[in-house]
Amino acid sequence: MRNVTSETITKAFLDYCSDDTDPRLMFIIERLANHLHDFVRETNLTHEEWQKGLELLMAAGNISTPERNEFILFSDVLGLSSLVDMVNSAENGTPSSVLGPFHILGAPDVPVGADLKGGNEGTTVVVGGRVTTSQGAPIEGAELEIWQTADNGLYSNQDEAQPEYNLRAHMTTAADGRYLFSTVRPAPYTVPDDGPVGELLNSTGRHPWRPSHLHFIVTAPGHRSLVTEVFPSDDPYLDEDPVFGVREQLVMDYQKREDPSDLPDDLEAKAELKSPFYVVDFDFVLADASTS
Amino acid sequence: MRNVTSETITKAFLDYCSDDTDPRLMFIIERLANHLHDFVRETNLTHEEWQKGLELLMAAGNISTPERNEFILFSDVLGLSSLVDMVNSAENGTPSSVLGPFHILGAPDVPVGADLKGGNEGTTVVVGGRVTTSQGAPIEGAELEIWQTADNGLYSNQDEAQPEYNLRAHMTTAADGRYLFSTVRPAPYTVPDDGPVGELLNSTGRHPWRPSHLHFIVTAPGHRSLVTEVFPSDDPYLDEDPVFGVREQLVMDYQKREDPSDLPDDLEAKAELKSPFYVVDFDFVLADASTS
Repeated sequence: MRNVTSETITKAFLDYCSDDTDPRLMFIIERLANHLHDFVRETNLTHEEWQKGLELLMAAGNISTPERNEFILFSDVLGLSSLVDMVNSAENGTPSSVLGPFHILGAPDVPVGADLKGGNEGTTVVVGGRVTTSQGAPIEGAELEIWQTADNGLYSNQDEAQPEYNLRAHMTTAADGRYLFSTVRPAPYTVPDDGPVGELLNSTGRHPWRPSHLHFIVTAPGHRSLVTEVFPSDDPYLDEDPVFGVREQLVMDYQKREDPSDLPDDLEAKAELKSPFYVVDFDFVLADASTS
Repeated sequence: MRNVTSETITKAFLDYCSDDTDPRLMFIIERLANHLHDFVRETNLTHEEWQKGLELLMAAGNISTPERNEFILFSDVLGLSSLVDMVNSAENGTPSSVLGPFHILGAPDVPVGADLKGGNEGTTVVVGGRVTTSQGAPIEGAELEIWQTADNGLYSNQDEAQPEYNLRAHMTTAADGRYLFSTVRPAPYTVPDDGPVGELLNSTGRHPWRPSHLHFIVTAPGHRSLVTEVFPSDDPYLDEDPVFGVREQLVMDYQKREDPSDLPDDLEAKAELKSPFYVVDFDFVLADASTS
């Protein structure tokens, strides 16, 4: 089409795409083109503003490394990562939440009741519950990947002072679907704000502090895999998570306790728990693999 | 907000932005967030599709260099660059078209009538016309930046075999608003298709061939600057320019001539023109600086 105008360009774009294009890809591209074109038309975007957007993308490319993906961070702070989680979340299971960039493979296998805290500084928390089906039946052999920050707000792969797999574990539930571990209370931390994402946050008056959280991936055969986070109910940043990961069902009380005697006997650290400590009860509900 | 859902996340995002945010920036971000969020909601974008999009962005960052900006190329082939041109184009002037990545500063000053062809192979074209106001008055002292490909489809800064400023010039109009030069017919060429933009084009059955064109930037005090391109009417790719730069008013006949005697006497190459040659008449109309 040689007479492309601001009104006809979207149709011209779609007409240029082959009829043989994969239908799902074509649908995605059709929606993307319509939204991006409408964005430019509605804002009458200037050349300077367009240039600024391209500079942010180029800066994101330049600051990204194998350890830091600024494009994912843009997706996170724009709410896109969480929105993808939400539209793919099973309705009859525990809500999913952002994976984040700090998960690594190879965390050590530990038994139910293991202590992850070891020599870490900070408040002791005992975290436990059950993995169940959406009908409430316990799932034996469900696998949990667990990771979190140390008391300084850093993950082990951000902090050379921590052992390689510090505060990371892989645990398999027993016949009653139970999981249990003692650990240190995770700390709030900032998303990286020294790049173009930080510029976006600054220019809109947003802060980079994520509420503290425990990360989990929970999987079991025949069930949808769950990637989620669990937040303490007293965290000051719960209502303004810059990456939109908080869901009401993922907010848990850290219950203060002084007497460890009623804790399960398979809690490895039970005898050495210093008072006070905190207890978190959280059950994971996995939707059937067949459900949407 | 701790109870963010796929329906409330857009409002949550906007609520996180400070009331002090620059109003224009806030408007742009509000429109962008609405469109990106709607895109995810309407497509139910999967994690795999989201990941694929992020991989394309990361690949664009990795393949970009000071000489090659893959993000601009994405903007080009998605129609965004041309759409920005269109919404900013003056209504009572010559339409603008994409600047492209091959303009460089410092092209030599040449007089009206200059020959740019020199030792270049290819068909000779005599290009001329006037620069006028939107009322048709000639503009004296208007400045033209001219650049184009050689016969092999390459710009001088892509091709070490060409002299540094080959087929590039800076010309100033005389009292009658006239410009004139002889050159070689530009050639079609492909946008770079060995990166993620090429992957997008391939996956939707689009080809990378741009119709041949002459680039111009035309400026004059008191008038809006014009960045545009002029296309030959017989180019095979006119109706499918991958970057959407063609406008009907920018398509010109290359008129075949055999007799140079009626050409202006200030055409430097007039005496040496080999028959047949081609003539292109094209007037540039600059809108007043005050018009939108």
